[in-house]
Amino acid sequence: MRIGQGFDAHRFAEPGSGRELWLAGLLWDGEGIEGDSDGDVAAHALIDALLSAAGLGDIGSLFGVGSSSRGVGMHGVPMLRETVAHLRESGYTPVSASVVVVGNRPKVGARRAEAEAALSDAIGCAVSLTATTTDHMGFTGSGEGIAAIANALVTSPDEDNPR
Amino acid sequence: MRIGQGFDAHRFAEPGSGRELWLAGLLWDGEGIEGDSDGDVAAHALIDALLSAAGLGDIGSLFGVGSSSRGVGMHGVPMLRETVAHLRESGYTPVSASVVVVGNRPKVGARRAEAEAALSDAIGCAVSLTATTTDHMGFTGSGEGIAAIANALVTSPDEDNPR
Amino acid sequence: MRIGQGFDAHRFAEPGSGRELWLAGLLWDGEGIEGDSDGDVAAHALIDALLSAAGLGDIGSLFGVGSSSRGVGMHGVPMLRETVAHLRESGYTPVSASVVVVGNRPKVGARRAEAEAALSDAIGCAVSLTATTTDHMGFTGSGEGIAAIANALVTSPDEDNPR
Repeated sequence: MRIGQGFDAHRFAEPGSGRELWLAGLLWDGEGIEGDSDGDVAAHALIDALLSAAGLGDIGSLFGVGSSSRGVGMHGVPMLRETVAHLRESGYTPVSASVVVVGNRPKVGARRAEAEAALSDAIGCAVSLTATTTDHMGFTGSGEGIAAIANALVTSPDEDNPR
Repeated sequence: MRIGQGFDAHRFAEPGSGRELWLAGLLWDGEGIEGDSDGDVAAHALIDALLSAAGLGDIGSLFGVGSSSRGVGMHGVPMLRETVAHLRESGYTPVSASVVVVGNRPKVGARRAEAEAALSDAIGCAVSLTATTTDHMGFTGSGEGIAAIANALVTSPDEDNPR
Repeated sequence: MRIGQGFDAHRFAEPGSGRELWLAGLLWDGEGIEGDSDGDVAAHALIDALLSAAGLGDIGSLFGVGSSSRGVGMHGVPMLRETVAHLRESGYTPVSASVVVVGNRPKVGARRAEAEAALSDAIGCAVSLTATTTDHMGFTGSGEGIAAIANALVTSPDEDNPR
């Protein structure tokens, strides 16, 4: 069994930017979020947790960074699917993953089941989503942006010698 | 085996608020901490890590949110006990959990053994507590509040099919 | 199997401080970083994740805190080696670990393989390193400092009774 940690944060877009608010594989009403791709911090943190667990780099090494990234315009779910395909080609299988979203909005709880179903379907194992706020402290509390912290377990190709 | 991630943050109360400082299942001297319940960020992060590992929602879905929350006035240890009872009713057993407290105070190290004993007893498995600061950076470094990051492992009812 | 969580953050040093920039076991060009030891947040977060997984306290209890810390002047890799020796003496074996570095610089990706090799060699199991930024938000986004979040799995001396 191998473990991975992931983190991501993105800034809410200026009003009128035309950006949408994607989070945990879903489109939400309200202000948009910045990012090279769709800015889905939950999906991106999960991608890093999965790649990290498998020792296969991170979202930047898989999709590229900045305006030339292959991720430009991509949504979280197809990025997760490509990540998991990459893991499986390397002999790793996702076992379990979870992600915490930290921010004032959107209110995730009402659509948790829908989001967990989208993420679990994309990754192919149970994925849990929780959410919390920071009592108006820090950049998540001021409403500047959203952060996400994820972890994941994968089985390695050689369980007897995880190195 | 399933994994969960948890996070929580609360703000120190204004002097004279009458709030107490609860953290990691213990009452500490000094300024109080805000929160619907006792504001115990270590306990709340562990609750979310455990619920997330079991795919059973989060602290808000179990205890409610805001002034009508069942958690109003509750301390971390009874909330942890209720959380674990909910896991066990659903067939999940906590295996291991840990939590990092991030903040300037209280100084957790001197009472680590006491806090770990309280948390481990509440959860029914080994629980570790570590603590660190942020070099006066961010809301934890300015002394505005305390944050906690937790993770947990639980065994699932059907280990052969974690989904 | 037991799980641990770790976190650390350090501030960039003032120009001319003479401090170096150590991160993930490597020396990087550019501004130095503060800290009692070499300020390697990735190594320190991993140390706390490992100690936490084994229930053996944290970096402060093992190395001391402040200017009298044994860690003064120590680099991350020897501190990791001493940490793992302490785990092994207590019957714990690291199985897997990962760490996310959050900050604007240094750009970790170009030297990921080198850093992962240094960390994996020090810990004796696969260790993954990922990196991300916070869209100019918070203390990591303003360039004040760097943070790191780590997790780890260890096997316990008595796998049948993880408590």
